[in-house]
Amino acid sequence: MFYFQNDYSEGCHDSILARLAATNLDQTPGYGTDAICQSAAARIRRACGRENLAVHFLVGGTQANLTVIAAALRPHQAAVGAVSAHINVHETGAVEATGHKVLPLPSADGKITAEQVRRTAESHLADPDGEHMAQPKLVYISHPTELGTLYTLEELRALSQVCREFGMYLFVDGARLGYGLTARGNDVTLPDLAQLCDVFYIGGTKCGALFGEAVVISNPQIARDFRYLIKQRGGMLAKGRLLGIQFDELFQENRYFTICQKANRQADRIRTVLAEKGIPCLVESTTNQIFPILPDEALAELGKEFVLSPWGRVDEKHQAVRICTSWATTEEAVEALCRALEKI
Amino acid sequence: MFYFQNDYSEGCHDSILARLAATNLDQTPGYGTDAICQSAAARIRRACGRENLAVHFLVGGTQANLTVIAAALRPHQAAVGAVSAHINVHETGAVEATGHKVLPLPSADGKITAEQVRRTAESHLADPDGEHMAQPKLVYISHPTELGTLYTLEELRALSQVCREFGMYLFVDGARLGYGLTARGNDVTLPDLAQLCDVFYIGGTKCGALFGEAVVISNPQIARDFRYLIKQRGGMLAKGRLLGIQFDELFQENRYFTICQKANRQADRIRTVLAEKGIPCLVESTTNQIFPILPDEALAELGKEFVLSPWGRVDEKHQAVRICTSWATTEEAVEALCRALEKI
Amino acid sequence: MFYFQNDYSEGCHDSILARLAATNLDQTPGYGTDAICQSAAARIRRACGRENLAVHFLVGGTQANLTVIAAALRPHQAAVGAVSAHINVHETGAVEATGHKVLPLPSADGKITAEQVRRTAESHLADPDGEHMAQPKLVYISHPTELGTLYTLEELRALSQVCREFGMYLFVDGARLGYGLTARGNDVTLPDLAQLCDVFYIGGTKCGALFGEAVVISNPQIARDFRYLIKQRGGMLAKGRLLGIQFDELFQENRYFTICQKANRQADRIRTVLAEKGIPCLVESTTNQIFPILPDEALAELGKEFVLSPWGRVDEKHQAVRICTSWATTEEAVEALCRALEKI
Amino acid sequence: MFYFQNDYSEGCHDSILARLAATNLDQTPGYGTDAICQSAAARIRRACGRENLAVHFLVGGTQANLTVIAAALRPHQAAVGAVSAHINVHETGAVEATGHKVLPLPSADGKITAEQVRRTAESHLADPDGEHMAQPKLVYISHPTELGTLYTLEELRALSQVCREFGMYLFVDGARLGYGLTARGNDVTLPDLAQLCDVFYIGGTKCGALFGEAVVISNPQIARDFRYLIKQRGGMLAKGRLLGIQFDELFQENRYFTICQKANRQADRIRTVLAEKGIPCLVESTTNQIFPILPDEALAELGKEFVLSPWGRVDEKHQAVRICTSWATTEEAVEALCRALEKI
Repeated sequence: MFYFQNDYSEGCHDSILARLAATNLDQTPGYGTDAICQSAAARIRRACGRENLAVHFLVGGTQANLTVIAAALRPHQAAVGAVSAHINVHETGAVEATGHKVLPLPSADGKITAEQVRRTAESHLADPDGEHMAQPKLVYISHPTELGTLYTLEELRALSQVCREFGMYLFVDGARLGYGLTARGNDVTLPDLAQLCDVFYIGGTKCGALFGEAVVISNPQIARDFRYLIKQRGGMLAKGRLLGIQFDELFQENRYFTICQKANRQADRIRTVLAEKGIPCLVESTTNQIFPILPDEALAELGKEFVLSPWGRVDEKHQAVRICTSWATTEEAVEALCRALEKI
Repeated sequence: MFYFQNDYSEGCHDSILARLAATNLDQTPGYGTDAICQSAAARIRRACGRENLAVHFLVGGTQANLTVIAAALRPHQAAVGAVSAHINVHETGAVEATGHKVLPLPSADGKITAEQVRRTAESHLADPDGEHMAQPKLVYISHPTELGTLYTLEELRALSQVCREFGMYLFVDGARLGYGLTARGNDVTLPDLAQLCDVFYIGGTKCGALFGEAVVISNPQIARDFRYLIKQRGGMLAKGRLLGIQFDELFQENRYFTICQKANRQADRIRTVLAEKGIPCLVESTTNQIFPILPDEALAELGKEFVLSPWGRVDEKHQAVRICTSWATTEEAVEALCRALEKI
Repeated sequence: MFYFQNDYSEGCHDSILARLAATNLDQTPGYGTDAICQSAAARIRRACGRENLAVHFLVGGTQANLTVIAAALRPHQAAVGAVSAHINVHETGAVEATGHKVLPLPSADGKITAEQVRRTAESHLADPDGEHMAQPKLVYISHPTELGTLYTLEELRALSQVCREFGMYLFVDGARLGYGLTARGNDVTLPDLAQLCDVFYIGGTKCGALFGEAVVISNPQIARDFRYLIKQRGGMLAKGRLLGIQFDELFQENRYFTICQKANRQADRIRTVLAEKGIPCLVESTTNQIFPILPDEALAELGKEFVLSPWGRVDEKHQAVRICTSWATTEEAVEALCRALEKI
Repeated sequence: MFYFQNDYSEGCHDSILARLAATNLDQTPGYGTDAICQSAAARIRRACGRENLAVHFLVGGTQANLTVIAAALRPHQAAVGAVSAHINVHETGAVEATGHKVLPLPSADGKITAEQVRRTAESHLADPDGEHMAQPKLVYISHPTELGTLYTLEELRALSQVCREFGMYLFVDGARLGYGLTARGNDVTLPDLAQLCDVFYIGGTKCGALFGEAVVISNPQIARDFRYLIKQRGGMLAKGRLLGIQFDELFQENRYFTICQKANRQADRIRTVLAEKGIPCLVESTTNQIFPILPDEALAELGKEFVLSPWGRVDEKHQAVRICTSWATTEEAVEALCRALEKI
């Protein structure tokens, strides 16, 4: 079987395994205060083109989302995001468990617009009963989104601008950031994110690490006492250097970007076959996620050799599925899938 | 320098590293639903001598504590523990952040007694204004305690009995359980814990794993929907098998116990030297933690070669320190420390 | 000026004022344990036709909603309600502040259907990743709804049945229950609510009391330790008898229903004029709230004499407004409004 | 029977009842935005000698405590108070339910000292593992304390100074403030409180009102968006003017102070008898609470005519009780109690 159902089925890039072995019996201070974490943070700051960034390493995405939001908001404040946002749908109410409402905005492609944010902010301010509603204070987006789509730099700038205009924070969930920043047509860079967001994170788990998300904070209001928040929410790893190792390796020799870009190119090859066969997709994307709509029989046939991710029935005879490539996807698997799709 | 300041300075047991490498490119389902986690859980159930136990793997101790307590309690209910309990002192209010009060009981050696619990429960029940106070519902102890001390089986039975009498849960934090269960004089076993507690966990982080705590739940009230709680609190590891690997290796060939026992024996050698020199300790312990009270000059001298953990000034000329051995402590280090202590 | 903007502008029914004065210097036990509260609870149980009901008096609706939901749910569980539900829109995230997500269902008229609840429950159960989502556990409806609409007994039975089928709680917010139960066409009674819901409340604040909502709990799971929850959430009134007085008076001589019915009849008179003038409403209702869509000039004219509640622009030239009658609305005010509407 | 068991057994001062009746059918805007609340707030600002104070009216003390603390603290921050503090003991974990730890300081008389606060702050700052502990950020005291004792102006100044030095908030719970400010020997005034605290409240419930606590906030950090917090925590009264009425009446003609002072004088008379009889008290106080230690037989005898509040057994033959006078205590009751005590 070839597995295309997600991008976290395998372990990690070889360099990380090697580093784990090489440092295994080193004795280092705990909780992320070690030299490896410092080195990894320095590499990330360099890649972001700025020194005054707080960098913290957390184990997973939900943990990163809930910790950042708990750090940023006062009790009556809400996070605003697409109705399909990971925090709104797939985190078992983790944000609400920190006490905060998620205000959902309609979205067909997983993205939200500066105009939507503006309307939300303005209508809240204009409402004489505003204090009877949760106050929109943080805008949560992901790049790429849940549907693999991307913000343009212009869209991101507009979001950033409207947030600053209304005193809101902009938070970018980059669980798949490596795939986003290396996709065809993407014009957003790490320095852009560091400049335009108040806080974002660089996903490791889905981009070559065993685990780990590097939270990058430019806004000192959110950065203040952030380690207290990490500890309180159960996210402070005793052997913190393990997280440092992930990012210290991925941010050497451009690895983070190289391995993600490879996965995007593999996805492009699959997309080419789909296009040639006239198979439609739920959304257009250029990252490592593809959402084709396939006839039931074709899916049954593909299911003998490939594990894909069901994504909902579209009509009586068609279903959408998610096909994910990853940093670990083999050429052999892509070849096999392309050949199988050609035969549909 | 030789490091004795804690038991989480190094990486992990060789077998774990080897397994990580051997399985690195295997493709497995995410979030702990894989076969390695199942195998590890089965080994733990076997070691506990019972089948009807829910076993979940979490990354760290604070995460385990807060998730278990959030799963167990209704909003008005409190956890009862020693004033020195980890949840009361060293988790940045993680339990309170889930909405629950920690009710501290006085304790000189890190332990609490069944009698203290009984008095707490009875006085709450007897108080006509009981509903104006948080309701004591879960008893939290650790074995070994923060001070390396141990409960006897009889003490544990008494705690279990009083908890059942008053409808309270008994929760044992076993962050250093391996050191506890293999210490001189310990008469508690895993099957005892599985029978006497509602929930406990087997610490990996400090006992040979890269990270990981195996939460073992015998009470179905707490076990119900536990994975929802894990996900909500940010503790669900995408590549869940990494946690399975830790425990699947540690629970082969009696490794978990062998490596911890070795550390206890090393600690015993240090204790012997301390006793011979007439150096007092804060508390008596037989596990991998020792809390000697040393003259300032001796500490200054030791500090040139050894990193110990400061544990508070005792008088004008003496300080307590913590000396930790661990599964990774070398014979060379113990030898060096013993020789240095002999010279005081 | 005549005020029709809401149903909580005035104080309370005369009988309550008189009782306050008559009992002012009586000495009674605190916190709702007094005889007046017991008498009021007994009257409510009688009106509900059942003895085994827990009755608690809270000061306000948001307090009642958040306390009930906090008492009913475990941390990973969510309340399901109409997108326009008070708890979803107008309580500043009070439910989320207790840690729980509100799952919104689409609704045009403020009501949700048993079929919607069934689909929500079934799709959650069917989802292999269900544990990554908040678990729907409590269905929140209001009777009347935010838009003054009513559930039929059949609809309520269907909701109750689907809740029981899926192990969910049914919670009815009755902030305006008096208006609902006495409206033209309503076929729901207090005994129906006591039988079909797990918990509901009888609104006092908007129905003749100075303040107060009587929470009626038939499900012992929710009732257990409820007073702890009231105290913890800041809802336990020291001079609890004040709440008892409200309901002990309103539930004498059928007052609660008589005064609300009068307001419904006044609203009917206004509705008749609107219908005669061909003025459309946002929704059809038979309770004390009316939502006509009026031309801007007409509103400007009305605004000179009447305070109505703006309810959103409908098109360039029309706005919806809310007209509320209440137990305190005078005949003179209704006459004046009818005459003014006739002149539009 | 004469009731001395607390100071909230009766209703309210006559002037409040009269005002309720006089305004009953007035139509006012809801939620505390009415003219009566504004007038009451203006009176309080005047009494505090400052204009730039936010004044909010809440129904009860627990509600006030939890709302203020939720408004003031970030998630990792704790409130520091006496171990006997109301928030630590008698609010069913209400503060913890907002996510915050209460750090208890030892206290024999209900008071804490600036020196204790300094040590707490300094030791937290000095601890290299400080981020593993909740951060002390708000100092909670009550004036008078749970035991009826009072801070001197000098003590209050010292507390205020140490708070400002360490960036902590000073919060004074004034549930019985009227009794405190009018007690023999008290040298603290409302303007002192307004100047020295970041936030405090003026208790109405126990000092002549039906209910109500006036929260006075001088620190704009806490004042910002405070109404959102009130609403979110269920504390926003629909008919907000009811709260305004309490304080608008109490702060006319010096009533608040006059009626409390009378109760203090009545308590003084009881204290005189106790002193003459050589009956010791748990603590010395000059406010309306007295804590005599009485022989069991004497208590049995007194119990035939008087309701006192049991306060714990002192030895085999003696118990402490609380005797409370209040604004409503009659001369007759005081006379009777004095005579009975004389006979012991």
